[in-house]
Amino acid sequence: MSDPPDRRYHVDGEIVPAESATVHVEDRGFGYGDAARETMRAYGGRVFRWDRHADRLARSCAALSIDHGLPKAELRERIDETLAANDLADAVCEISITRGRRAGGSGRAGGSGDRFDPRVESDPTVVIMVRPLPRGGVGSEPVFDAPATLQTVKTRKTPDRAVPSDATTHARVNEVLARLELRVTGADEALLLDADGRAVGGADSTLFFADGEGLKTPSIDGPVVPRVARAEVLDLAGEEGIPVEEGSYAPSEVREADEVFLANATWEIRPVRAVDGIAVDGDGEGAAGPLTTLLSRLFDRRVESACYDDVPR
Amino acid sequence: MSDPPDRRYHVDGEIVPAESATVHVEDRGFGYGDAARETMRAYGGRVFRWDRHADRLARSCAALSIDHGLPKAELRERIDETLAANDLADAVCEISITRGRRAGGSGRAGGSGDRFDPRVESDPTVVIMVRPLPRGGVGSEPVFDAPATLQTVKTRKTPDRAVPSDATTHARVNEVLARLELRVTGADEALLLDADGRAVGGADSTLFFADGEGLKTPSIDGPVVPRVARAEVLDLAGEEGIPVEEGSYAPSEVREADEVFLANATWEIRPVRAVDGIAVDGDGEGAAGPLTTLLSRLFDRRVESACYDDVPR
Repeated sequence: MSDPPDRRYHVDGEIVPAESATVHVEDRGFGYGDAARETMRAYGGRVFRWDRHADRLARSCAALSIDHGLPKAELRERIDETLAANDLADAVCEISITRGRRAGGSGRAGGSGDRFDPRVESDPTVVIMVRPLPRGGVGSEPVFDAPATLQTVKTRKTPDRAVPSDATTHARVNEVLARLELRVTGADEALLLDADGRAVGGADSTLFFADGEGLKTPSIDGPVVPRVARAEVLDLAGEEGIPVEEGSYAPSEVREADEVFLANATWEIRPVRAVDGIAVDGDGEGAAGPLTTLLSRLFDRRVESACYDDVPR
Repeated sequence: MSDPPDRRYHVDGEIVPAESATVHVEDRGFGYGDAARETMRAYGGRVFRWDRHADRLARSCAALSIDHGLPKAELRERIDETLAANDLADAVCEISITRGRRAGGSGRAGGSGDRFDPRVESDPTVVIMVRPLPRGGVGSEPVFDAPATLQTVKTRKTPDRAVPSDATTHARVNEVLARLELRVTGADEALLLDADGRAVGGADSTLFFADGEGLKTPSIDGPVVPRVARAEVLDLAGEEGIPVEEGSYAPSEVREADEVFLANATWEIRPVRAVDGIAVDGDGEGAAGPLTTLLSRLFDRRVESACYDDVPR
């Protein structure tokens, strides 16, 4: 459960031992999930697609009206410091920015004594956590043990009108409930549907599938997280001349696809070997299909050239 | 922003100075809002309706499959200890139970290295916070400064199929976004609608209104939080022979009501003086209507007899 004794995190501007990295119980990130988070990978000491992750983080903060006042360069510097303090080159990094502590005061102080109210000025808390991952790039081993099994769950994705899906916050009970449903089958990832029963994606990953017509993924017109890994895969497919469609799909279309894979910053591209207990493309062996294999290799090459090659940062 | 130096909270079985009351940054309550919370008031040193609050907390934990293993009596004892450590008789108390810290390990440890997964066993964290409130009961002053202004917002209430509304968790970004919309008008509370545009309630309170036919409140068939204060008001109205209807209401019905009030454990009953900028019942003075006044007095009496009178606990 605990981190190695020499692990270091970055909390509120300071490098601290991971074991004593804490937030106050009145921090709104703890009390309300009132915080933005971005998860990314560093390869060879460089954060992959930092600019895109920084933009996503800025959009999440904007959706929550969290004004932390820190330039992107400062955030990147803190991540670099955290990697250096842990002597880590290949790692997954999480940066969280909370709205800060709840308004203080007792009883009637502050008008209604309503410490839930997000309109009171507060001082954001910035937390950076890192942990080692194997080397990525060309010829690398995946960070997952095996292709995933994907299972449709009853928990429906929170609609954009309740919480916009382009804000990645600390309020993730929707996804937690989806994953908890997997206890029955032991599947690796939950496939969430929207209110109309259309496939949205995994609890913590973007859904892609391929049929005779090309590569398909749920459109961000729906409650779909616009992950950096999603954009990367779409870029790669476009560059390679693979037909790509962003649309609205029934879960049956996913179950009947020739290939299915999931993407997020940590997994990169993870093949799916079964959907709702049905083997993808029949053989049940879980070998990734040709398109999935191709895109994984292209992804590795991009990582290699962006982070490991001797390019200026 | 900070608590008085002598304030004490209860964290993981220990009374600690409030200023050093923290949770680990890997606690799932912080990272994912993966925690249950119950807010209640103590009057004269006794938690009002402890049994109902304890049942609600148990249901929230059950919805999240958080198995903390602590008997209700132990939870109550911790709250009592916290009140005593602060020498507080009249207070608001919050108890939070999180799923505990995320699964540890680096890289491939634990199969997929997926620390988001809630299925990994963890050790729940219990946090109790208290802060002083004025005396309640008969003849007491309200804890709010004035009757509330209520404003319909665009943010829609998260549907039950995404997160069941009878689970009160730390994932409250939906309500935070609703309250943030109030920056425009400066209203006190947000009125959220469901996906069909029907009134659900306040961001942090239960909605009641009265017209010629009696007292009305949104039914828990919709995404409505079954607050203890809600049950208490319904009980009181029933005892008094006031006709009560739990139903599905358009926001226009609330705007046109003779009386409107909000209820939660902290506010108890808070009159509403305007809805969407329209004065309730015309005079704009904000004086509570007769039904609201009656129910407030009856509420005070119940508090008096349950907590201040010399009854066995």
